[in-house]
Amino acid sequence: MSSTPRLRSLSGIKPTGQPHWGNYFGMIEPAVRLADDHDAFYFVADLHALTTVRDREALQRDSLGIAATMIAAGLDPATSTLWRQSDVPEVLELTWLLGCVTSMGLMERAHGYKDAKAKGKDLGFGAFAYPVLMAADILLYDSDVVPVGKDQVQHLEMARDMATWFNVAFMGAPAGGTVEDVKWDGRMLKKPNALVQSRTAIVPGVDGQKMSKSYDNYIAIFASQKELKKGVMAIKTDSKGLEEPKDPETCNVFQLFKLFATKAQQEELAAKYRGGNFGYGHAKLELLALAEAHFGPKRARYDELMARPDDLRDILAHGAHKARSVARPVIERVREATGLPARTW
Amino acid sequence: MSSTPRLRSLSGIKPTGQPHWGNYFGMIEPAVRLADDHDAFYFVADLHALTTVRDREALQRDSLGIAATMIAAGLDPATSTLWRQSDVPEVLELTWLLGCVTSMGLMERAHGYKDAKAKGKDLGFGAFAYPVLMAADILLYDSDVVPVGKDQVQHLEMARDMATWFNVAFMGAPAGGTVEDVKWDGRMLKKPNALVQSRTAIVPGVDGQKMSKSYDNYIAIFASQKELKKGVMAIKTDSKGLEEPKDPETCNVFQLFKLFATKAQQEELAAKYRGGNFGYGHAKLELLALAEAHFGPKRARYDELMARPDDLRDILAHGAHKARSVARPVIERVREATGLPARTW
Repeated sequence: MSSTPRLRSLSGIKPTGQPHWGNYFGMIEPAVRLADDHDAFYFVADLHALTTVRDREALQRDSLGIAATMIAAGLDPATSTLWRQSDVPEVLELTWLLGCVTSMGLMERAHGYKDAKAKGKDLGFGAFAYPVLMAADILLYDSDVVPVGKDQVQHLEMARDMATWFNVAFMGAPAGGTVEDVKWDGRMLKKPNALVQSRTAIVPGVDGQKMSKSYDNYIAIFASQKELKKGVMAIKTDSKGLEEPKDPETCNVFQLFKLFATKAQQEELAAKYRGGNFGYGHAKLELLALAEAHFGPKRARYDELMARPDDLRDILAHGAHKARSVARPVIERVREATGLPARTW
Repeated sequence: MSSTPRLRSLSGIKPTGQPHWGNYFGMIEPAVRLADDHDAFYFVADLHALTTVRDREALQRDSLGIAATMIAAGLDPATSTLWRQSDVPEVLELTWLLGCVTSMGLMERAHGYKDAKAKGKDLGFGAFAYPVLMAADILLYDSDVVPVGKDQVQHLEMARDMATWFNVAFMGAPAGGTVEDVKWDGRMLKKPNALVQSRTAIVPGVDGQKMSKSYDNYIAIFASQKELKKGVMAIKTDSKGLEEPKDPETCNVFQLFKLFATKAQQEELAAKYRGGNFGYGHAKLELLALAEAHFGPKRARYDELMARPDDLRDILAHGAHKARSVARPVIERVREATGLPARTW
């Protein structure tokens, strides 16, 4: 009996502060689920973080924090590969080589750059170069699929474009066709597919806008029980009185409740909203109970992990070792294709 | 008796085709001379070359060619450090980190980018990012001086700016002053000084324009005797007859002759020009004799070196080892400053 090899899924998480419910339901939880039937390669994107972070203690703390978060959320570091981006220097070699085949035209069309420019921000070069590093992150590991939200589809497309240009520039288009026609043959850069998360949860913040660090409207996933309660109680609602019937579909509390609740629990709470004599305070307590049931045990595991930073470092070092063993042959064939000398390290 | 430690001079040469007289008198010869009283760190800039080169055999051949050229020109690889850029992966780590503290404003003011944009060229991202890699080349080795032509002063200034921003971003300005005031203390990135070559030889090509690969008006320094003759004989002159007196100062042949000649030889030839009955053909033969006397023995050494590519590779590997031993503590203190984990490789 032969078994189909699992596809490799790749994802990176920036260590910039505490993950919140939006990060969790939008990215962390789906990524952990994906690891069930994929060869999950997940990394702490500390090199990406340095485009903005200027605080060494924060970077160190948050890097370990992301690792602990992924494990507490259910990722098994024994069967998945979890590492720190900066522990694999090959990613910056590939970044340079991809940059050499990338036009400024493509870079200037990147949404992030265009948006920042439209707002008149003086973007850093690091933020401008971001999509090239991201492409290297993906292509260095012969990734098959990359889970992305709809807003990141462009970055994945850029990575695919860079792979194509690299393959054409250094290996040429195949006779009688374009490189687009070629099945990956193990010599070239492998073009990954986007795994677009269509059913991505929309997670409102406590003020009703999209939950985001930059709006300061978030609830951290591993907030203490006390902070969790404070966060939930701060969710904005309208000013309907206790006795009035309420519409669950326009209520932030209900939207957040849905993230944790079964269908039956959702219907039950919706009925209470519509029936009247049920206040937002009651709804918040129900949300709080489910959130605590969901995050409580994970928070305990997270705290346990963070209390043993050396163990986390060991896990990440082991992950880096595994990641490099995949990256090395890729960078070697890339160097070979360009004419760079064989690596001696 | 204590001796003053030699200052470290840093320079890189792109392996893109055969060096010509313009490269030799403008850069190679002054760099070799500088090595007499400096700790010379010179590298074959193969990563820079990849912004344009798409031919693996050419890159490999030209990389060895540059190494052989430097040695044939007089550089002693036992007392100087000569390596291939891509053999020191730390340079791309530093490139990313410098990019993170560099504004797009600065990058867009770089001459090379502005010129290409003004000409409506679609520049590659690699060419745009070039000054960041160049800054990393310089700063990775705690260089003291960088010999530059006047057209490269801006790049050196950019490297100094990036060093300052990096130091401020991750180490902060010192109490009671700006980072500009601080004497280098071994923790920060060291700011190198430009060694502007004011007396840079102006080397006209065979057509009278500046000698340049892109004008195809050059004479390769290690051209065979036959090619050398062909090159010299092709130098453009005016159409004055044999008997007419001639002006040495407006003559390409004389300008090139000056590169090889002593003061006395120059005066002697100038007198012949002015005396009449002395044709450009005669002048070319005198130039040819001096050029062959200068390059002949060097060409023989070059051919000898190129016939033993494995020995050249050993020299470059040894140089990379020396270069990395200097680069490693620098990249380690840089990583330490930013909060990246200690290197495990």
